Amino acid sequence: MQEFRIPPAGNAELAGRLKHKIDCKTKPLGSLGMLETLGLRIGLMQGTEAPHIHKPHLLVFAGDHGVAAEGVSAYPQEVTWQMVMNYLAGGAAVNVFARAHGLELDVVDAGVNHVFAPQPKLLDRKIAMGTKNFTQEPAMSLAQCEAAIEAGARLVRGLNLLGCNLIAFGEMGIANTTAAAALMARYTGYAAQTCVGRGTGVDEAGLTRKHEAVRKALILHRAAVTPLEALAALGGFEIAMMAGAMLAAAEARMLLLIDGFIVGSALLAAQALNPGVLAYCVFAHQSEEQGHVAMLNYFHAEPLLRLNMRLGEGTGAALALPLVRAACDFINQMASFESAGVADKA
Amino acid sequence: MQEFRIPPAGNAELAGRLKHKIDCKTKPLGSLGMLETLGLRIGLMQGTEAPHIHKPHLLVFAGDHGVAAEGVSAYPQEVTWQMVMNYLAGGAAVNVFARAHGLELDVVDAGVNHVFAPQPKLLDRKIAMGTKNFTQEPAMSLAQCEAAIEAGARLVRGLNLLGCNLIAFGEMGIANTTAAAALMARYTGYAAQTCVGRGTGVDEAGLTRKHEAVRKALILHRAAVTPLEALAALGGFEIAMMAGAMLAAAEARMLLLIDGFIVGSALLAAQALNPGVLAYCVFAHQSEEQGHVAMLNYFHAEPLLRLNMRLGEGTGAALALPLVRAACDFINQMASFESAGVADKA
Repeated sequence: MQEFRIPPAGNAELAGRLKHKIDCKTKPLGSLGMLETLGLRIGLMQGTEAPHIHKPHLLVFAGDHGVAAEGVSAYPQEVTWQMVMNYLAGGAAVNVFARAHGLELDVVDAGVNHVFAPQPKLLDRKIAMGTKNFTQEPAMSLAQCEAAIEAGARLVRGLNLLGCNLIAFGEMGIANTTAAAALMARYTGYAAQTCVGRGTGVDEAGLTRKHEAVRKALILHRAAVTPLEALAALGGFEIAMMAGAMLAAAEARMLLLIDGFIVGSALLAAQALNPGVLAYCVFAHQSEEQGHVAMLNYFHAEPLLRLNMRLGEGTGAALALPLVRAACDFINQMASFESAGVADKA
Repeated sequence: MQEFRIPPAGNAELAGRLKHKIDCKTKPLGSLGMLETLGLRIGLMQGTEAPHIHKPHLLVFAGDHGVAAEGVSAYPQEVTWQMVMNYLAGGAAVNVFARAHGLELDVVDAGVNHVFAPQPKLLDRKIAMGTKNFTQEPAMSLAQCEAAIEAGARLVRGLNLLGCNLIAFGEMGIANTTAAAALMARYTGYAAQTCVGRGTGVDEAGLTRKHEAVRKALILHRAAVTPLEALAALGGFEIAMMAGAMLAAAEARMLLLIDGFIVGSALLAAQALNPGVLAYCVFAHQSEEQGHVAMLNYFHAEPLLRLNMRLGEGTGAALALPLVRAACDFINQMASFESAGVADKA
């Protein structure tokens, strides 16, 4: 597989200058809380004292999952392609929030079990018509996994060339919380019990089947221990493609706006491939999905929002974008005590 | 004092229709979490299945406090008027966030110890050149307190006539966390220890003086037990004016976007005068100020943001506005399962 060369985000000298700039603003020291930390981090990612968000782009990666056959979701598999059509028509929650916040949105067909007519805003990067059922065989081959990573990376490099410096990640794929839970258990070493939750709202019987599917998969693929093998055995096409997109985004020093549980599982894979990716990540929200708190702790992440959401699609990322912009804006636009003629602390 | 007649927000029949509309949207049931609760509440406030935010307006109420003489703040009193000038010049944090979110901003001089030249965006409603030192006498007379309430109410009625249906509340006033803490102790019955915090960041000696000032004031004004008497004895002009503005806003079925600790203390006063006001309140954020968590619990409030901020000015309210809009937008703009041709839960 190709190597991703992720540069470190900023340096101590720049951090000092940013901190000084922030501390001279007309406000009590530290009083903007997480926005100050975030603004400083974005400055470091971008290597500047004037951080800014330019042409932010949300990619909704969609893919189908063979493990859906195990009855692990509350919804039938065709909902994946039907929701893709809903995104393209602009009627889903993520469309509403992206529109409101000036966030460009494209849908990436990473491996949906449906033949779509070509159309604008739908990027055809289909690896196959859905993954295999990973309770019986690997979800995908190593070659497919590498192809997905490569396709994700190319997509992001193209957006970066057009001036985009923030990628928000979203996803759609019936049964993909099952894949995400299996990946989480493998990459973090946490018990499957911690990682499996109700996803879109599966009932008790479905939840039991979900636990069983993850348990079986982890045993069947116990030898899949390298980051790439684990991703191929337990992942999904949309998850692998996101992992590649994340690594390329960090390589280009773009800001990665991370949505919820499934996007987080792609980040676990990306991080296993190159831990440098984390320095470019901003965690949009803490979702209601059961494993997400533990996953955020694993990343030492401080999510911006806690709204008890569990919708996916990138909805959390789209909702957090105004806070990311605010963290840049105050650094660029606020007056200093000196410029405003305000007396500083006595 | 004038009576405020606050109508109940919505009814069970409308709540049922709103819930049905929300549940038919293309998303798992309840998966938008707090945004669903919020959207439903806004629909009830506005008496409609199509809630919307129109001409949102932030009023920053400024006033000075006699208790500043007790050395309870990290900043000198002239910072109040200097920051007012900063707001008028557009250089403060709240200006940055309000501009970004299309939130109109006016500054209300409720009682700043400074003579301002007339200028657009500065509304002169000055009651006096700052309150008295409430460790020695009541902060204001009952007549002044009523005048402040009345002035706030008139302001809001004027904005409502122009089509505004959301008022965001912000404030500025050196030493006003001391007044807010005293009011909180009186209205909630909580120990002063729970209510007093560091404000803009006072040092240990200053914090001790702040505790002492609140303790003295609560004893001196122990007979000030009616809502109005307590507000006059322990409040501030900006706080009393906010309380009046809140009551008038609820009377007009406007949404009240509540900022942090000091705005919350004004709401405690408003609520003591008429508990109906709470049905129209949305709590923007949980601040770092020590007493704010207890205050939010007292209101049974679920704040939208938790960003460890403690800046005041209405910054939390300005940052929360996109979430309030999102809660309306998804109800109006999302497709239903039927309209989008998406299969509902199996």
